[in-house]
Amino acid sequence: MIAPGKTIGILGGGQLGRMLAMAAARLGYKSHIYCPEENSPAFHVSADYTVAAYEDEDALKAFAKSVDVVTYEFENVPAETARIVSNHAPLAPGSLALKVAQDRLVEKDFLNESGVKTAPYKSFDTKEELETALATIGRPAVAKTRRFGYDGKGQHVVKSKADLDDAYEAMNGQPAILEGFIKFDREISVIVARLESGDVAAFPVSENVHTHHILDETQVPAAIKEIVEAKAKVMATRIANALEYVGVLTVEMFVTDETGDIIVNEIAPRVHNSGHWTIEGATTSQFEQHIRAICSLPLGPEHAVGKIRMKNLLGEDILDAEKYLSDPTAYFHHYGKKEPRAGRKMGHVTFVEKE
Amino acid sequence: MIAPGKTIGILGGGQLGRMLAMAAARLGYKSHIYCPEENSPAFHVSADYTVAAYEDEDALKAFAKSVDVVTYEFENVPAETARIVSNHAPLAPGSLALKVAQDRLVEKDFLNESGVKTAPYKSFDTKEELETALATIGRPAVAKTRRFGYDGKGQHVVKSKADLDDAYEAMNGQPAILEGFIKFDREISVIVARLESGDVAAFPVSENVHTHHILDETQVPAAIKEIVEAKAKVMATRIANALEYVGVLTVEMFVTDETGDIIVNEIAPRVHNSGHWTIEGATTSQFEQHIRAICSLPLGPEHAVGKIRMKNLLGEDILDAEKYLSDPTAYFHHYGKKEPRAGRKMGHVTFVEKE
Repeated sequence: MIAPGKTIGILGGGQLGRMLAMAAARLGYKSHIYCPEENSPAFHVSADYTVAAYEDEDALKAFAKSVDVVTYEFENVPAETARIVSNHAPLAPGSLALKVAQDRLVEKDFLNESGVKTAPYKSFDTKEELETALATIGRPAVAKTRRFGYDGKGQHVVKSKADLDDAYEAMNGQPAILEGFIKFDREISVIVARLESGDVAAFPVSENVHTHHILDETQVPAAIKEIVEAKAKVMATRIANALEYVGVLTVEMFVTDETGDIIVNEIAPRVHNSGHWTIEGATTSQFEQHIRAICSLPLGPEHAVGKIRMKNLLGEDILDAEKYLSDPTAYFHHYGKKEPRAGRKMGHVTFVEKE
Repeated sequence: MIAPGKTIGILGGGQLGRMLAMAAARLGYKSHIYCPEENSPAFHVSADYTVAAYEDEDALKAFAKSVDVVTYEFENVPAETARIVSNHAPLAPGSLALKVAQDRLVEKDFLNESGVKTAPYKSFDTKEELETALATIGRPAVAKTRRFGYDGKGQHVVKSKADLDDAYEAMNGQPAILEGFIKFDREISVIVARLESGDVAAFPVSENVHTHHILDETQVPAAIKEIVEAKAKVMATRIANALEYVGVLTVEMFVTDETGDIIVNEIAPRVHNSGHWTIEGATTSQFEQHIRAICSLPLGPEHAVGKIRMKNLLGEDILDAEKYLSDPTAYFHHYGKKEPRAGRKMGHVTFVEKE
């Protein structure tokens, strides 16, 4: 057990790191944030911070030596960064989770080997391989770079053969995969926490609505049958176990239209935007649960306190602060970012309708 | 309105400053803590801090100029400190609240002039005046220094004339008052928030149990009749209005045995240990409510979410962390203090029994 009073190192200083640090603080942990960007949101709520590149070996060493455990707020932590850090402090979640989550091909292979269903997929490097893949997968399909894709970046839909050139160009020479297009009824996510001891707790399944590839709203409970909810949790738990995971893991899934079947879309080895509702909407937040898990504390109770709706505040949405602060059902969160650029995640608001 | 994103200055870096900074952060405010002690608990959750004496004019000026509003976590802010700070930034609550709360004689005079009942009292400076006071007030009575008393320090009970010498000596030459001993049924407190606009919101009344003059437990709801609850809130509101108060004000009261009457014991112009239950037990916490009030944001809803019990963790009580973290009804708070000295407030735990 890493006891309250110890120090948690967090790679990444955005809103996820910030909310992790705030949850850690309630339990008495100090946070040390490592982030290349000056004035990062997480710095404002932490005992210490380091501004340095993820390639800066000396800074990474000093950081890891100053803390009792290291975690991260983003899945694209370079493997070399993870290796350096883990020479000096335990890293949770571990490097397998990073390896799997960083590469769509490795991820899909891993998920299928774990007995979890994904969209059909095939990797490609050349345009010829893309053509062959399309013949196998069928249309429509989505070409995606294997690495560094988020919020819809590095993706291109292929509806007809005429789209092949554009799709190939969109990959920008990166290794890629072609995925079968999944016609889905609902998009859900399961946030599951796992201790090193093997204890697992899954939050209630949330239903997510994306707009322009960015999460707009999360609702709990998801409008799915009990059996589907149970199945989704079993699948997330299976993945966490297969990864010998420590911490909070997010599994995004599609509930398909025709069959009520579940397809896993992707995993994120971290707390997730679709889990922000847990701060006021669940008895333990995803952030606290992650801190508990990486410190080997007992997991907290994970049930929802009512009907919850979380809405992201993008760009100038954040200027509506007073409206939300006047609403007795709303919990307003502001990430302390200075410039409300269009599409930037500036905060969120959670509406709680108590049972 | 001081909009989210701005900076709040807090005089004092203990657990109250810490929890204020954490509440401020959720709303997007940065905190700058001013405290003479190195490594203060509030530093660990704040964007900035200054370690300097409360008499350091230059440091106070620089601090006040760096923030958008200044507040405090303790009522004994020196008048000169308050004056310097308020030359450069708004100070909330204002200097009247400090003046009244710092001196038991001024406080009792003010309360009685505001139409609120207190214990009978009489000031004394000399031993002869103490004798005269005792003749007026009657026995038993309590001698208290007018200033700097907390957690039972600077107090002495006078049961018989034989106690007079000890009581006088206990005052250590300080101006003092003699108060009539109130035989009370219950000790309650009302935490009330007031905006500059005059808007007021009172939290449900809490019932407090002290052990060795230090708060041990708070329970909500208090075991009092509805009419007593309503009366207590009216009294607290009257005091807040009389002070033209901005922020959260705590009013400690005795519900007397015989009559159900309420006697005001003392006020604290700040968030208070007896309000810690509001973090998970009320829809808005006292800390957030204080931040809202000093920033002229709308006040949040203040009702309790169920039956609540808050227990202070003193000294080595804090080492029971794992026990509380394993209890699904318990919310564990650790203030990040290093040494669990006997009697030191190290954390608290709130038990919530949902309605």
